[in-house]
Amino acid sequence: MSNQKTKSRNRRVVILADTKTNMMPALAREMARRNHDLVLGDAADGLADELIGLGVHVEVVPDTADQTREDTIQKLVDRAKDAFGGFDAACIRTGVHGDGTILDSTPEDCQIQYEGNFLSVFYALQALLPPLVEQRSGQVVINTSASGLRPASFASIYSAMRAGANALVRCAGQTVGPYGVTVNATGTYAMDYPSFLHDVGADKDPAKRKEVEAGVPMKRLCKPEEAAHFVATLIDGKGTFQTSQFFAIDGGWSFM
Amino acid sequence: MSNQKTKSRNRRVVILADTKTNMMPALAREMARRNHDLVLGDAADGLADELIGLGVHVEVVPDTADQTREDTIQKLVDRAKDAFGGFDAACIRTGVHGDGTILDSTPEDCQIQYEGNFLSVFYALQALLPPLVEQRSGQVVINTSASGLRPASFASIYSAMRAGANALVRCAGQTVGPYGVTVNATGTYAMDYPSFLHDVGADKDPAKRKEVEAGVPMKRLCKPEEAAHFVATLIDGKGTFQTSQFFAIDGGWSFM
Repeated sequence: MSNQKTKSRNRRVVILADTKTNMMPALAREMARRNHDLVLGDAADGLADELIGLGVHVEVVPDTADQTREDTIQKLVDRAKDAFGGFDAACIRTGVHGDGTILDSTPEDCQIQYEGNFLSVFYALQALLPPLVEQRSGQVVINTSASGLRPASFASIYSAMRAGANALVRCAGQTVGPYGVTVNATGTYAMDYPSFLHDVGADKDPAKRKEVEAGVPMKRLCKPEEAAHFVATLIDGKGTFQTSQFFAIDGGWSFM
Repeated sequence: MSNQKTKSRNRRVVILADTKTNMMPALAREMARRNHDLVLGDAADGLADELIGLGVHVEVVPDTADQTREDTIQKLVDRAKDAFGGFDAACIRTGVHGDGTILDSTPEDCQIQYEGNFLSVFYALQALLPPLVEQRSGQVVINTSASGLRPASFASIYSAMRAGANALVRCAGQTVGPYGVTVNATGTYAMDYPSFLHDVGADKDPAKRKEVEAGVPMKRLCKPEEAAHFVATLIDGKGTFQTSQFFAIDGGWSFM
């Protein structure tokens, strides 16, 4: 199973969404270095050209930001089929943020979190898994959140829906394992990227960054390249045994 | 923190023990390919010469099979200091097997499992962590067992002591995180190597192998190279944020 490649394709193909931010641009670069052609949802400016410069083929699919739509990830699957004859691996970054404890959240908050953090994963898996089951190989990583493992009471509904998504990934792994397909989840915490810094107020107040760092066992934030190094190992075809699992990328935060 | 290397050493140094069997010879090859010098406990025949052929320096320390001794892993740490001026990472494969449910185990079984699966990890961490804390960087992986995550009632005491070791690793990660040192555990199940095949009777009866494969969601055994690909990612210095964690390498067995 090592280095598996479907014979009809020149090199392995990976679907990545969204590739605007977080660890995803770094992951796109790492997968290109590991000799993958790429299908990108909503790529960061200049990313596609940079990847093409590394010698691989890149397809960018626009208008894939709304993952609460049933057809969003399907568009990427369809493009992979049209451009490359299919795909071998995928990493889908899902989710919408939302704060609030159980005491101050509304049913509307629940609906938003359900659609953004659970239904999005459901749709992604339903789009990605059937063609992989059919070809009897494939690796899927859904990026959720470390708060799906460690309850984050300040964002209770978010945390709970992330936990639900992690459980769905585990169930999916059991279902498609017999067909040689792996499904895992990853969850980041304290990633050093604009949205996280904004969420914790560190974009305006440097003291806030120090506060977050102090609350992580590793006492620092995560570089996107570190997360990419780990996730690439789960989808590059060289180890296709691990499945049904949640991998925290969180500096030890989940286990405090 | 990426590609971190202590300035006084020519390349990164990794301690591996024991390197006779399981995923360990494959991990030694992978770390050599990732440009590490190696300190090996009890290497498989011919392994050291093969690694030297890859262009790295290798030290083999004999008589390190008994990890229930306080000084076993310390010998490897001492050799790393003498030969290379220290080390950057370590993967220690620990453990003794032992079957029995709660109803048919003895206090003597408990003592053997305690020493082989918990005290061995305690000693390993006490030998490895202080020099890493002192140099303010380092990555440690302790290989335990997936049965520390999923209870294996057919080997209840073994399973329980592995769970204890995983918890000790999590605690250790919290303790040394502030010094830039990561500590994680990995646990394999259904590894395709002689001892596992013997334990399940597959060395004499091919039908037994099919039975085990049927009981794993991925419906096959794990190649040592697949586990090595994953573990190398945790100790090669390119991602030093994840800590306090248990990573199953088990084809989804823990989550059935």
